[in-house]
Amino acid sequence: MKVGGSPYRTIWLAEDGWSVEVIDQTRLPHVFAVAPWRTMQDAAEGIHTMIVRGAPLIGVAGAYGLALALKSDASNAALAHAHETLLATRPTAVNLAWALTAVRTEVQRLAVPLRGEAAYRLAAQLADADVECCRSIGAHGARLIADAYEATGKSRPVNVLTHCNAGWLATVDWGTALAPVYVAHDAGIPVHVWVDETRPRNQGASLTAWELLQHGVPHTVIADNVGGHLMQHGQVDLCLVGSDRTTATGDVCNKIGTYLKALAAYDNGVPFYACVPSSTIDWTLSDGLRDIPIEQRDTREVSEISGMTVDGQVATVRLTPQGSPVANYAFDVTPARLMTGIVTERGVATASRAGLTALFPEMAAR
Amino acid sequence: MKVGGSPYRTIWLAEDGWSVEVIDQTRLPHVFAVAPWRTMQDAAEGIHTMIVRGAPLIGVAGAYGLALALKSDASNAALAHAHETLLATRPTAVNLAWALTAVRTEVQRLAVPLRGEAAYRLAAQLADADVECCRSIGAHGARLIADAYEATGKSRPVNVLTHCNAGWLATVDWGTALAPVYVAHDAGIPVHVWVDETRPRNQGASLTAWELLQHGVPHTVIADNVGGHLMQHGQVDLCLVGSDRTTATGDVCNKIGTYLKALAAYDNGVPFYACVPSSTIDWTLSDGLRDIPIEQRDTREVSEISGMTVDGQVATVRLTPQGSPVANYAFDVTPARLMTGIVTERGVATASRAGLTALFPEMAAR
Repeated sequence: MKVGGSPYRTIWLAEDGWSVEVIDQTRLPHVFAVAPWRTMQDAAEGIHTMIVRGAPLIGVAGAYGLALALKSDASNAALAHAHETLLATRPTAVNLAWALTAVRTEVQRLAVPLRGEAAYRLAAQLADADVECCRSIGAHGARLIADAYEATGKSRPVNVLTHCNAGWLATVDWGTALAPVYVAHDAGIPVHVWVDETRPRNQGASLTAWELLQHGVPHTVIADNVGGHLMQHGQVDLCLVGSDRTTATGDVCNKIGTYLKALAAYDNGVPFYACVPSSTIDWTLSDGLRDIPIEQRDTREVSEISGMTVDGQVATVRLTPQGSPVANYAFDVTPARLMTGIVTERGVATASRAGLTALFPEMAAR
Repeated sequence: MKVGGSPYRTIWLAEDGWSVEVIDQTRLPHVFAVAPWRTMQDAAEGIHTMIVRGAPLIGVAGAYGLALALKSDASNAALAHAHETLLATRPTAVNLAWALTAVRTEVQRLAVPLRGEAAYRLAAQLADADVECCRSIGAHGARLIADAYEATGKSRPVNVLTHCNAGWLATVDWGTALAPVYVAHDAGIPVHVWVDETRPRNQGASLTAWELLQHGVPHTVIADNVGGHLMQHGQVDLCLVGSDRTTATGDVCNKIGTYLKALAAYDNGVPFYACVPSSTIDWTLSDGLRDIPIEQRDTREVSEISGMTVDGQVATVRLTPQGSPVANYAFDVTPARLMTGIVTERGVATASRAGLTALFPEMAAR
């Protein structure tokens, strides 16, 4: 998608043909900066400190980290060390583990001198596959936006509400929940996005708002408390969210607060879709509330916040009284019964085992 | 309630017997400071800049503002000027208009030399009446907490979730939604409060957390996104919120985001109560969604936030990208169908015209 009018991905090979460049997401929305990675350690630190984040993106970033490692030393020992180091950066990220194993398995079969080049090729393939997957989600989801536009008699922009950042910054390009928005916008369908700020880490106010602004998509940032009111008053046509983990029955584990928006959508008859690459569907799970443990994160994400001061410095301030306990649950589970459907790279499914296995029969057969 | 072990109200007469002192709520939770008011202008500025806030409190503050005015000049002209000046500080505050009119009507009948003393007496009566009303709401609501404690087999503290600040800082003492918590806590019933931070103005994280901390009530601050997850997992026994305006049919207009918590409570079978002095019931309204206009406030309340830096300074930082539009809806309406009941100073009513008029038959007869 575009930044300042130029097309970008979140990760790419530098002009030298071997070092890796990424958008430094820790500095958004206030500063747009590109971070260069010249070693596997650069990549490991970049993933750990969330210079890159988003499940699809960190898988690709990990793959490039392996390539950087093998460029300087392609021995089995170096490969094992790099795998271990990169995996430890985000231990619960399923995509990272999957990508690292995929690349390692492939290159291990090769003679040492061939491994480096092969790793770069595999990393590029993973990146391109992610772009293709997201573009497909975008194409399928954009039809929902087009239908909503028809339903208004083409009288006004379609209002989409999204939570957190499941945009192109979380992937290599296009995004998941925002891919339909970009496809529709680029096709000339007028679309406006209500952006939940998404406390406590504010990925909506910082990342989603920034990427929509850069690509030129009309949007408005709102507090997380506002979406229900907007839906009561007909100001939301469609909710599109991402998913960190989806059960085979269509329950969606996503950023904390998603469940509240799904309740409001259900109460007001607003269609609510999760946009998920099939790689995030866990076919072994059948009850999201029972089976998915919810991570609790550092409470300073709630009690403190960072932003830009009037004199252009990024500063952190404390919001809560010294001495008040704080809790920080990172995700919640939205039951399938509240969702209109799930948008995948193969099409839109009902949020149910029947719906998902109809699109992915090979998974049901396993 | 207590601050640092000593009992306080939010507003009181100073030791000199005539000047007024208030807790400066703009400096909480980081600094506890008392602001002295020696003139009507001090009071007007204090109400306007939200040194005092909360519907019941600003009514009493306005009455003391009139008393301060009349102390130096009790002429009809001075009285009219003071009334007009104080009313303009918060033009939409129903309690302020009501209190100013009540005091003015009463003192206008008196000879000029008697007016000042009468205004002080009336202001003190309003303050005491507010305390009594809140204490009664607390007594009725505390029974709900006691019942929840019984239902646990007295095995663990009762978990109450609240939104925004409807605590004693919003009133003269006790509060509305938190009055039942204080009554129960003081009676030895173990109670713990989940405190929604309440974006965008963060009254929960700043005011509610501070007052619970000072009074010694166990509590935990959470992002507004978290309540639904907690209710899904049985971690909330009871929701208690305030109300800015209540219809005769039991719809509740309260801080933005209240509706989302009511949906989650309903979805999970968690009792949900609004605690309202009957003065906030608008007996002329029958449909909150249709009849209550929702104020939109300064968007900088969303795009910027203030807190304390590590070196103890209060600083403001920007959260959103420069150029991203922002919307700031201040309230929403929770339909009566989602509420278990309404706690008033006369008892607990079902959220319906029948329930409310059974407690307040004189209003139905009007």
